Amino acid sequence: MKIVIAPDSFKGSISAADAAAAIERGIKRYLPEADTVKVPVADGGEGTMDSLIHAAGGRKVDAVVTGPIGLPVEAAYGLIGQEQRVAVIEMASASGLCLITAEQRNPLIATTYGTGELIRQALDAGCREFILALGGSATNDGGAGMLQALGMRLLDASGSPVRWGGGALSEIAAIDDSAWDPRIAESRFLIASDVQNPFIGPKGASHVYGPQKGATPDIVQELERNMAAWADTIEAKTGTRVHDLPGAGAAGGIGGAFLAFFPTSIQPGIEVVIHYSGLREHLLGTDLVITGEGQIDFQTAFGKTPMGIALEAKKLNIPTVALAGSVGTGIDSLHDLGITSVHSIVNGPMTLQEAMDRAAELLELTAEQIIRTYAPAINQQHGSKE
Amino acid sequence: MKIVIAPDSFKGSISAADAAAAIERGIKRYLPEADTVKVPVADGGEGTMDSLIHAAGGRKVDAVVTGPIGLPVEAAYGLIGQEQRVAVIEMASASGLCLITAEQRNPLIATTYGTGELIRQALDAGCREFILALGGSATNDGGAGMLQALGMRLLDASGSPVRWGGGALSEIAAIDDSAWDPRIAESRFLIASDVQNPFIGPKGASHVYGPQKGATPDIVQELERNMAAWADTIEAKTGTRVHDLPGAGAAGGIGGAFLAFFPTSIQPGIEVVIHYSGLREHLLGTDLVITGEGQIDFQTAFGKTPMGIALEAKKLNIPTVALAGSVGTGIDSLHDLGITSVHSIVNGPMTLQEAMDRAAELLELTAEQIIRTYAPAINQQHGSKE
Repeated sequence: MKIVIAPDSFKGSISAADAAAAIERGIKRYLPEADTVKVPVADGGEGTMDSLIHAAGGRKVDAVVTGPIGLPVEAAYGLIGQEQRVAVIEMASASGLCLITAEQRNPLIATTYGTGELIRQALDAGCREFILALGGSATNDGGAGMLQALGMRLLDASGSPVRWGGGALSEIAAIDDSAWDPRIAESRFLIASDVQNPFIGPKGASHVYGPQKGATPDIVQELERNMAAWADTIEAKTGTRVHDLPGAGAAGGIGGAFLAFFPTSIQPGIEVVIHYSGLREHLLGTDLVITGEGQIDFQTAFGKTPMGIALEAKKLNIPTVALAGSVGTGIDSLHDLGITSVHSIVNGPMTLQEAMDRAAELLELTAEQIIRTYAPAINQQHGSKE
Repeated sequence: MKIVIAPDSFKGSISAADAAAAIERGIKRYLPEADTVKVPVADGGEGTMDSLIHAAGGRKVDAVVTGPIGLPVEAAYGLIGQEQRVAVIEMASASGLCLITAEQRNPLIATTYGTGELIRQALDAGCREFILALGGSATNDGGAGMLQALGMRLLDASGSPVRWGGGALSEIAAIDDSAWDPRIAESRFLIASDVQNPFIGPKGASHVYGPQKGATPDIVQELERNMAAWADTIEAKTGTRVHDLPGAGAAGGIGGAFLAFFPTSIQPGIEVVIHYSGLREHLLGTDLVITGEGQIDFQTAFGKTPMGIALEAKKLNIPTVALAGSVGTGIDSLHDLGITSVHSIVNGPMTLQEAMDRAAELLELTAEQIIRTYAPAINQQHGSKE
């Protein structure tokens, strides 16, 4: 029996790769000879790089770059693809909220410079195809820092380079691209993102995402004014009007910088991940898909990852079983979309904390029982195993 | 697809019959056309009568009898079998702890008289075959009350009838069987019980079960002395030495009275229930069995009911899926004994109380998902349903 194991991460608990490994252990407890393929997936958020590296058989390249508040951080980018020349850049690795303390959050000074450095290193390594995962950024600098790291000089009225962060964007009077890395024009950039927010306005980066990055209401107003000025400057330089462009507001406006200065396209995260993970190839000849995520209930829509996986499997009439920490009522619609069944990994009364702490063990136990339930029906037909 | 639904009760939560109904609802949500057969089971304890009536298509006969402390209670017995002539007597219905308050517990006075009345009424109704479920009794009277209700005169040294309860047993000087119901000798009595305790001694009725019926250590000693005297009296009258007889200690010693005065055999509860429920006939042509009970984990051995069901199903190579409120590790041995898989009905973090309160809903939800997981494998082979 061939089984594709394609879970998302169980947020706050275990990564997609660890979840896949636990599910595989459970399957092998009952069917040691099962042909299992682990395709841990993520939908463009944090963990996308690791998931893609794991699923596509890539590798990780360590890199020390400038962190969100200017201190060096140990970051990494991924290399995937047949010749390991497709770079996976996860912005959070260089410019993420996870790299600073709650007290250090300050989008007025936080910079995407490190993300630009990661791209530059990947360019140096020969990469010309980039996948960008933008989740979890600490920044609201409209991508200015990234541009600077790649040779763009952002100058104030006196001709001096502006300082880092969203607080300086309104001071940018001129963009000097004379030192701009020429390899960018030769490359392709694919943003894996579901964010549709524009660069500015009530649904723009500053208003929607600023607060979680540490912006008070006053700072949100200041960021919004600065981003509006920066949008005008970008338009004057490139002709691209990022102001209302869907997706330009992703990750503190870095989406806008990509769209204006890079050969960039945006695709829903799960589609990018499915494409580059090789999932479609893995599904050929597969009997069963097991996916999963932390929570599935009537309040939270079923996540993009399990649904994306199930829709692909459904095209080939492969059943998809979803495992979740919590399963509620009102999940009938999921079944119509390709989710064969949904099972909780919680195997008795326990607290949320216990369920999260024991996620790997519970996934293993549940996966074993799922396979035990699923396999006899097949084996009754085949007569191959009791 | 034919599915036999054979759960035990979920103790403290819902009855076996209600559990079976909930599981059926879940199955029918996905497979409205499924051929489902409900065989709620119990292993001889409380609920056995209802389960057998439900599984075997019998009926319940109400009867007002003498309760454990002498007050009238509304009891019932069951009628099953092709001609509805097999009586199911559940002792707890007439002489159970559930009929009195904690303060009323007193095995010195509690009597099995009502159980005898139930038997007499069933004899009057034409029954000559009896199934006896002895769980949950409030008594420690060595079956004396039951004998009295059926015509046996238990006399003290002065020739007067002794009073009810375990406190009077040592006063019994003579047994006068001149008014003993002659129909008993024409009948067969089958005790459905796993209790192996002898009549007296450290593992006898008084020491092991007396405390939970309200006996203090002093009262346990008193009951033990009285039961020993009563055992001698029984032996002198019948030649049957119940003192060390396995099973004679069941239900406050009523087992000994049956063995000494009735044409009685004892069989493990689940075997009796399986036989009379018609389970074996129901299993013919069955694709899947679903059983279940409240708790399955490494501490509590898997209950007798699910294992008994699974062993029967295994003889016909039918997979058995077990549902439980709590499933732990260390359940591998169950799989060897015929349990295909075990799934918790708990579908997310919650307390034990919530799981018990929501048992019916959770059983329905889980059963649906189990069938959704199980059915595609069959349908992949048959190509009959997506």
